This record gives sequence, C-alpha cells and structure tokens, in this order.
Amino acid sequence: MKITISGAGLYLPPQIESSEKIAPLIGKSTDWIHEKSGVFERRVSKIDVDKMGAKAGLEALNGGIQPDLIINASGVPKQTIPDTSTFYQKEMGFKGIPSFSIHCTCLSFITAFHTASSLINSNAYNRILIISSDRGTRGRNFNEPESASLLGDGAASILIEKAPNNIKSELLYYTMSTWPSGSGLTEVRGGGTNKHPQDLDTTIEDNLFSMDGPAIYKIARRQVYRTLLKALKTTGIEKESIDWVIPHQASGKAVDAYVYVGGFEKTKVIEIVSKFGNCVAASVPMALSMAIKDNRIQRGDIILLIGTGAGLSAACCLIRY
Amino acid sequence: MKITISGAGLYLPPQIESSEKIAPLIGKSTDWIHEKSGVFERRVSKIDVDKMGAKAGLEALNGGIQPDLIINASGVPKQTIPDTSTFYQKEMGFKGIPSFSIHCTCLSFITAFHTASSLINSNAYNRILIISSDRGTRGRNFNEPESASLLGDGAASILIEKAPNNIKSELLYYTMSTWPSGSGLTEVRGGGTNKHPQDLDTTIEDNLFSMDGPAIYKIARRQVYRTLLKALKTTGIEKESIDWVIPHQASGKAVDAYVYVGGFEKTKVIEIVSKFGNCVAASVPMALSMAIKDNRIQRGDIILLIGTGAGLSAACCLIRY
Repeated sequence: MKITISGAGLYLPPQIESSEKIAPLIGKSTDWIHEKSGVFERRVSKIDVDKMGAKAGLEALNGGIQPDLIINASGVPKQTIPDTSTFYQKEMGFKGIPSFSIHCTCLSFITAFHTASSLINSNAYNRILIISSDRGTRGRNFNEPESASLLGDGAASILIEKAPNNIKSELLYYTMSTWPSGSGLTEVRGGGTNKHPQDLDTTIEDNLFSMDGPAIYKIARRQVYRTLLKALKTTGIEKESIDWVIPHQASGKAVDAYVYVGGFEKTKVIEIVSKFGNCVAASVPMALSMAIKDNRIQRGDIILLIGTGAGLSAACCLIRY
Repeated sequence: MKITISGAGLYLPPQIESSEKIAPLIGKSTDWIHEKSGVFERRVSKIDVDKMGAKAGLEALNGGIQPDLIINASGVPKQTIPDTSTFYQKEMGFKGIPSFSIHCTCLSFITAFHTASSLINSNAYNRILIISSDRGTRGRNFNEPESASLLGDGAASILIEKAPNNIKSELLYYTMSTWPSGSGLTEVRGGGTNKHPQDLDTTIEDNLFSMDGPAIYKIARRQVYRTLLKALKTTGIEKESIDWVIPHQASGKAVDAYVYVGGFEKTKVIEIVSKFGNCVAASVPMALSMAIKDNRIQRGDIILLIGTGAGLSAACCLIRY
C-alpha cells in the first residue's frame, strides 16, 4: 500500500525516576531490577494521557494542515467514555475531525498503522494522525516487583499520508495473530464490566497491572519468531535487507531476543527500554519517532515493527520509509 | 467498496426489566420514564459482555468457516487489558485469529463497519466478524433518572465479506465528525488514567454513566441533520430511495426525530429502543440484525446507519444490502 510517514512527534515527561528510587518500594535491589527488567530509568508523567498525546500529535503535524482522521492507538484510555481521541482533538485545538481508537494493548500502534494505511489505500482519508499515549505508572502494583519496575510513561505520534508517485514509501507487509489461551497472562481486570468498581469484591489489585513475565516470555519468543519467519517468507525480503528492527519494548530481555534469537545485528535493533521502560502501546512509535527525528532512519530504509501484546497476540509490519 | 453482509447474529438477555420495576429505584413514575426515555422495558444480562458477544458472533457465522479478523465494536470493554476481542475469540473456541477493538462509544459499530469494508477493499482480509456487546445496566447511576432509565443490555454481530462480482452489495458512503466541545455531555470518567480507582478522590459516580440528555439532544439533532444532508448531497441518493433508516437508539425522542425532523416515513425507521433501551454501541447492529433476520431487509435495499456518540460525534453510513 502506497503510504508515507510524513511526520513524527514525541512527548517525554520531564520527571525521571531511577531504578535506585523504586527499588525500596518494591523490596528488591537496583541490580535485581536492572537484571530482571533491563530498565535503568523511566519517565513519570504529571499530565494525563490526552495532554501528553496532544503534544506529540502537534509535533508530528509540525504546523501543517489539519489531519482528516485522528486515531488513538494506546493501551489504556483516559476514561471509559468519551473516547481518548476526542480529548486529543480538544487539547490540540481542533474540531470536526473524525476520530476513534484502535485497541489491542501493546500492539495498538502496529495495528493502527496497518489500518490507517488501508483507509488511505481505499481513498477514505488522505492524512491520518496516529497518537499513542500511555501512562503505565498509574497502574503499577508495587506488590508485583517485575511489572512495577518495567512500566514507564510516554507518548508518540506518526502522521501518514498517501505516497506521491515519485516517492517509493510503502507498507510492504502486515500480519497479526491472537491466542486467547494467553489471555490471563497480562491483565488489568478492572475498568470495564468484568470487575466493576461498584462491585464489593473488586480489589485494588484488580485495577492494577498484573503479569506473568516468565510465562509470556516463553510463549512470546516462539510466536514472535514464527511471525518473523512468516513475514520474511511471504515478502521474499532477506533478514539482511531489513535496516531497522523496532520491537515493542516489553523488557530488556525481550528486546535482546531480536539479536540473540532473531539473529539481527545489535546496531539495527532500536532499544529504548533501558531509558524509558515499557511504555505499553507508546513504546513502538516512541522508538520509531526517535530514530526518525535523529536521522538514523533514511528514506528508502526498510523498517520492521514487531512485538507481542496481551491477548496473547503477536504482530509485525514491514515498511519502506 | 464492494462488500456484502453475509451473516447476522443477535443475543438478547432473557431477563426483562420493565419500567414499572425501575420507577421506584429512580424516584420517578412509570409515565415519566415512558415520556422522557421512550423505554418501556430493557434486558438485563447476567452473563458478561464477552459471553454475550460470542453468542451473537457464532450466530452470525452460522457454522461457516472461521473469520480471518474479529473486530470488537462496543462502548465499554470487559476489562482494561487484554482487549475484549480476545475474550470473544476464547468464548467462540477459536485461536490464532487477529483481533482488535474499534472504539468511539455509540458509533463504534458504524465506524467498524466502514473500517472493515476498507480492510476488505485493500485485500487485507476477506471475512471480518464485527461484534458489538454492551452491558450498560452495569454502569447505571440511579441518582440520574434519565440515563438510568435509558440503558439496556444486548449484543449483535455482523459478518462482512468481499462481494462477488454477481452481487451488487456495496458500501456507498460513510462520514463522521467529532466536536470535542461536547466531550463533557456524556461521560464515564473512571476506567482509565483520569479518575483511577486507586485515587482517593475518585467517587462511585465517576465510574457510572453521566449524561446531559437535553443538551446532547439539541446539538445532536442539528449535527445529525447536517450529516444526513451531506450524505444525500454527496451520493446523489434521494431521501425517498432509502429503504431503511437504522438510527442509534439514543432515546425514543432521538429515534422519532428521524421521522419528525428528518422527514423519513415512520415505517422505514427501525425502532427498538422502546423494548430494549439504549444498548450503547450494540443498538445499531441489534436493529440491523433483527431486520435482516425477520426478512424486512431484502437484497438490493439501501440502508442508512446513522447516529451520534459521546464526544460528541455524528456519523452515517449508506449500504446497498
């Protein structure tokens, strides 16, 4: 599908929280955090997801004309109703623009990127702004050291447009699979009709992030590897031709697996988890935006966006930038 | 876009709650409820949204082959993480099928229908199952009589496929607009990062449905009418050529407005709010599924799906069935 990334925006909350600082809160040593999660520091936002996302969105637009669609692609909403995309639009000072959310937890951005490309390809829209904004630190359970040490806050935005004929940018490939047998491995059980806040048996823990890290890592590593092999086989693209691998920043170990299991050169795998933690759905577009903004990614480069999400799902997307 | 509706499913919870029964709970008379909301009875589900949606989804599939994508298009999720679509898949006994949610409250189905058509048009998928399942009675605030008397539970599912060349079915038109100035008119402020359950100042009311009915009706009537005029003008379709109007069942008054303001014949406007209440995002596909299942809608008929959602958004979609 002939689409091009024409803007990239980022919002990194200014407050840095070191692993030294949270170590006593979770009853573990700093070394334990570094080894288990690979996170040395993370950002903690004092503003809510809508304001964070709007800042990233305005940067991606870079003063240009309004988008004709806004898609929110985050892991957790601002509130149940209305949709978070409405609040982005409000904070950016726009009105009348259609907007909705695409949600599949940590894979929301990759899926939104593919869906937006399809909408452009069908001539439904010309200029789509995707915003991912997550504030995972709001849902940390300090009684669950591994996930509590992983989560961080951040937002990023990508502007997609139809590629003019003289530009070779395109979406080359996309695939996703969901295995519901893994639905209990990563959960926030509250926030909907299941564990409603007014139910007397809903606990504080039900509203916090819960994760079985080792079990997920075991399944995820296998499923992501299969997803990768399928992508290479279907497209005929050689692993060596991929210029940049942008994985979901699930953990230090999960990112390293693209080198040690996936067989990619370390310099090609973009890693931001050590400095920003796992920012849920915002991790992939944050890493993508950073590499676009500092000119590592050049026009014509082939980029692989890849990862897993709660569900358990695996997805990947190949883009010629 | 050449797509066809190849299956329709419905789940109506067996427990009927009359307006007589809830009148004392909200401190109003039965007549007041009938007049204000137009709801005479609604269903109350004892099973959660995933089980409700899976029953509707399996009926839409009607024993046929698996879909290659499942889209959840509901107003409120089962829980924050994982996505509700994962739980549908689990309940339907499938695995490996990609799945995600499209969310824009009461317009989730109309937007998902357009997005699914675009994905089929781009050859990304061939057979997409959309499921809307809402359990609004879980979020009723009995201190807010109007909205508490409106909400009901229900689920519906529509299967969409690429239309073969000999079938004239197609998506003729879609439009949506969002005006964030109306973002405070319909809210559930809890469930996300805004009013987090662990915050001491989050109240029970923050987790319940809150609505300024008269203010919404005033804006919605104007914006929906503009949306309708734009659809007729853009497509060149005459109002008289539309065979069925399927509005979001916001209230009795909102549905009546398509006759008294919109100028459609009463027999063409499908009304289910009096028997099922406002079922959030499930209202439109419930009305559509009922009219398909009882053969009111015939192949070749032109159907208008139209409505408003919290945001405030208005959208419509014209389909040749």
